[in-house]
Amino acid sequence: MASIIPLDPAKRKASSALDDLAALVQEDLLAVNDVILSRMQSPVALIPQLAGHLIAAGGKRLRPILTLASARLCEYGGIRHRKLSACVEFIHTATLLHDDVVDESRLRRGNPSANALFGNKATVLVGDFLFSRAFQLMVEDGSLDVLRILSNASAVIAEGEVLQLTTSNNVRTSEQAYLEVIRAKTAELFAAACRIGAVVAARPAPEEEALRTFGLNLGLAFQIIDDVLDYSAEQARLGKSIGDDFREGKITLPVILAYNRGNEAERHFWRRTLEDLDHRRDDLEKAMSYLRRTEALKDAAERARHYGAIARDALGLFPSHPVKDVLLSVVDFTLEREY
Amino acid sequence: MASIIPLDPAKRKASSALDDLAALVQEDLLAVNDVILSRMQSPVALIPQLAGHLIAAGGKRLRPILTLASARLCEYGGIRHRKLSACVEFIHTATLLHDDVVDESRLRRGNPSANALFGNKATVLVGDFLFSRAFQLMVEDGSLDVLRILSNASAVIAEGEVLQLTTSNNVRTSEQAYLEVIRAKTAELFAAACRIGAVVAARPAPEEEALRTFGLNLGLAFQIIDDVLDYSAEQARLGKSIGDDFREGKITLPVILAYNRGNEAERHFWRRTLEDLDHRRDDLEKAMSYLRRTEALKDAAERARHYGAIARDALGLFPSHPVKDVLLSVVDFTLEREY
Repeated sequence: MASIIPLDPAKRKASSALDDLAALVQEDLLAVNDVILSRMQSPVALIPQLAGHLIAAGGKRLRPILTLASARLCEYGGIRHRKLSACVEFIHTATLLHDDVVDESRLRRGNPSANALFGNKATVLVGDFLFSRAFQLMVEDGSLDVLRILSNASAVIAEGEVLQLTTSNNVRTSEQAYLEVIRAKTAELFAAACRIGAVVAARPAPEEEALRTFGLNLGLAFQIIDDVLDYSAEQARLGKSIGDDFREGKITLPVILAYNRGNEAERHFWRRTLEDLDHRRDDLEKAMSYLRRTEALKDAAERARHYGAIARDALGLFPSHPVKDVLLSVVDFTLEREY
Repeated sequence: MASIIPLDPAKRKASSALDDLAALVQEDLLAVNDVILSRMQSPVALIPQLAGHLIAAGGKRLRPILTLASARLCEYGGIRHRKLSACVEFIHTATLLHDDVVDESRLRRGNPSANALFGNKATVLVGDFLFSRAFQLMVEDGSLDVLRILSNASAVIAEGEVLQLTTSNNVRTSEQAYLEVIRAKTAELFAAACRIGAVVAARPAPEEEALRTFGLNLGLAFQIIDDVLDYSAEQARLGKSIGDDFREGKITLPVILAYNRGNEAERHFWRRTLEDLDHRRDDLEKAMSYLRRTEALKDAAERARHYGAIARDALGLFPSHPVKDVLLSVVDFTLEREY
């Protein structure tokens, strides 16, 4: 959770918003890490090995942190949210494992993916295990409301993944279809993670709804910006890998906008690269120039700002609170990541 | 559910025990089929297509029938068991879908497997969907006891599948390790399916335990006989495909016994065929002669009879009841399938 202070102080506030949030819930987060590590154990040694590769390597823990922060914002004084935010992370990890198998990914967060190291078979099955383990933890907690929220989210995620399969490599995917996919695949789990904070604190329905709205729209903004960053010149300058979505033929909002706005030559280019996966030298540069010409990246980010604004307004219901301020900065951070 | 009367009347009773059981719970079973068909729907058309391929093609529905029969044996008068037996079938189907991906199967019940028809990606994801849908149905039912039983069973199944991966193609697998795998992979869901019948009927713990014992041991017997049938001369005579496990190098009880009892030449044969997957003409015939010589099939079936006896005794707690008689015949049927 230590934050490295960036050189440019102007960017410090935005880039450390996630660290600030983690710091605010630090005690809870350490406890969540303990739950995660102890509950991914199994007498079958391959399970903690494989799960640990992804979980212990530790992404940002963004989703469980959202559960912790939401509970804190709701003035929850207990510890149930710790176990439940571990559930959220287990469900997220299970979907990442299955995603990697489905996408045949070789890398995840710059490291070899679980399927690359352990094979598809074990990766599918350990995903199933983590998913079941999440439900076991929820049953231990005993709240049918939480079980309902997360079983619904899980079904919607799976539905979204299948929907994405059927729209994949089709540049004529509509913006609405794209939105429905990212809502199902990403935003619903953000929404559930936040909502659970209000549920454990037994807050009235409007607050639960406000946190659901916050999470859902933060999730949409997060995913759109993620999709924009894959074509970001600034990311490339920072030495980060770009163009993964392009090479896989993933249909994301920047491409949808560029295709709709493009001339016939450009549309032909997008079909060749994303539908036929026929890639040539300098195609990524060409893609980025078309995205620039059609202002697709800029306007995709503009769309993300719309969802960010909804997320921000959703917190208006809550009185002034240190967690509220940091959650608002997280929205800013999500939108202002360099592209 | 219509039963075709076999030519040999001596075998009629045994072979129709499953049909008799289905007939006893026929009204419930029709309702379960409706729940299954309506709840595997999704706006994403590929989901019902793929799920329907396996579910509608319809195996024996053995597990949901066990839930229905157990509830009936417990004199349950409501309809909750219908939705819950659909959950059991969804969980079973999800594991079959993931199994087919893991085993790279091309066939399932003599038809092309879902992964062969729809690809691995969709098959993994629709499995996830059915699994989530099962939990949604349980949440609708609202029993934390049922949720606990089935989330535990699901975690154990996944654990068993991973364990099987790590022991696969090792002919020195112990009988105990084999037992632990089939208990996790098969018997725990049989146990859960039966136990739920007592839970919805709110029967006292000893009856719930009796049905758990019945299901667990029936499941063990069922799986052992299934593994024996893969080498059955009688099955071959009936025109059924045999030798699938042999070709895949699956380590099942017959092989474990034959290896332990075999001479050095035989052990070398088992290592070559099952570990190195180096198969030659007439190897299956040779395998069957070694299994005969070591009495491995006969004694594996004998082991199955042990579990069958435990299952039968477990029902001793229940007073005379038409369902009880048929459940006892199902044990006989399971043990007497031709090998």
